[in-house]
Amino acid sequence: MKHSPLYLFGNHAAIAALDNSMRKIKRVLVTKNTQTELAKKLNGLKNVTVTEGQKLEGLLPPGSVHQGIVLECEPLAQPSLHEWLDLGISKPILLLDQITDPHNVGAILRSAAAFDVGCVIATDRNAPAESGVMAKAASGALEIVPLLTVTNLVQAIEIIKKAGYWIAGLDGNAKQTIAEAKLDTKTALVLGAEGSGLRRLTGEHCDFLVKLPMSTQMESLNVSNAAAVALYDLYRRRSEG
Amino acid sequence: MKHSPLYLFGNHAAIAALDNSMRKIKRVLVTKNTQTELAKKLNGLKNVTVTEGQKLEGLLPPGSVHQGIVLECEPLAQPSLHEWLDLGISKPILLLDQITDPHNVGAILRSAAAFDVGCVIATDRNAPAESGVMAKAASGALEIVPLLTVTNLVQAIEIIKKAGYWIAGLDGNAKQTIAEAKLDTKTALVLGAEGSGLRRLTGEHCDFLVKLPMSTQMESLNVSNAAAVALYDLYRRRSEG
Repeated sequence: MKHSPLYLFGNHAAIAALDNSMRKIKRVLVTKNTQTELAKKLNGLKNVTVTEGQKLEGLLPPGSVHQGIVLECEPLAQPSLHEWLDLGISKPILLLDQITDPHNVGAILRSAAAFDVGCVIATDRNAPAESGVMAKAASGALEIVPLLTVTNLVQAIEIIKKAGYWIAGLDGNAKQTIAEAKLDTKTALVLGAEGSGLRRLTGEHCDFLVKLPMSTQMESLNVSNAAAVALYDLYRRRSEG
Repeated sequence: MKHSPLYLFGNHAAIAALDNSMRKIKRVLVTKNTQTELAKKLNGLKNVTVTEGQKLEGLLPPGSVHQGIVLECEPLAQPSLHEWLDLGISKPILLLDQITDPHNVGAILRSAAAFDVGCVIATDRNAPAESGVMAKAASGALEIVPLLTVTNLVQAIEIIKKAGYWIAGLDGNAKQTIAEAKLDTKTALVLGAEGSGLRRLTGEHCDFLVKLPMSTQMESLNVSNAAAVALYDLYRRRSEG
């Protein structure tokens, strides 16, 4: 992953990266139109190249909507789990159990930023590395919410527990709804992949399971929608006091 | 649209269509493996053809995950708005103002089914027609929630108002949150496109505007995530009493 260049693209993702002082940007590639539109933002930057839209397309996966801007970047330096916990930030944590689609992970990061999650944790295997597609779906959130990777999710759960968090697993078969569980700010929510859900061992290490209330006519939500709803419910409780 | 065949694909979408007695299915195309897996479901059906996976791929947009089953169908016969209102179903309504991406509309239908929405309304222009991509994202919900089309959204809003519904527009600049608005079951929620939001005229015809509470570090959610959260909040209120 560190050997192939990371290209961020699209207005929101690119502007958020330009605004992030921790983001190392090697090159900025823009169309003439976008250069004009973003003149203020690009003012004073080195390594800005004006080029054709087609050249930008050539750098990206087929079908990517670059909106006239591509940044060649280095992946963000993310803290380790211990480093993040040592910061003492009192916000919920979101753990992803084998959620692999970068569009979903990106949309989940966006909801995590919107609902003020402290960090998102994924495993270094079975999870997508930071990518342009993920950053585009995150719409800037990749620059806001730390995306931590761990080798073993169950070990991470145990470390987080010791730091004083309750671990809540989202599971359609749970007895109580997320609202009934009255989760507090120091909650780490664990979300499984669509279809398979939480892995058995992951579920066993949760302090309790919660579900989203739902009509019996539908089995489940899209995973990023389930994440948004669960994080909203946590946020709503925090803001209602 | 009625001239090109409608292909539904993927396990959830196809099984829901097979279970829907109102869905006219012309042909069922399956791989040998899927035929075995779904033997019970396919038992007694006419017009089942066993074929190669590649043949199925050839019928679908590039990148479609057919999971070994494609149905050639007719679009569902949907009620008109007047016909639906005459049924007297006491459930919320969701109106889509120029939401065009079939993945988003499909995911929104899925959330609408999960949170027991009565019907989803889109305009016949600037909205995607029923399609395999939409049905796949809806994961069966297209067979559950009526998807009504209207020519003019503002006219539809006025008709719904006269039927005793309150019209709530989702707008990030609203003064009150959706929870504060204490919406009841006879609510019609209007959702605008990502970025542009509600059109001016649409907003003016709403009885009031509501927003999702959100951290200031993020401007908005993905549109299907925003829909999921808003519909969840309505559903939660209904189930809590």
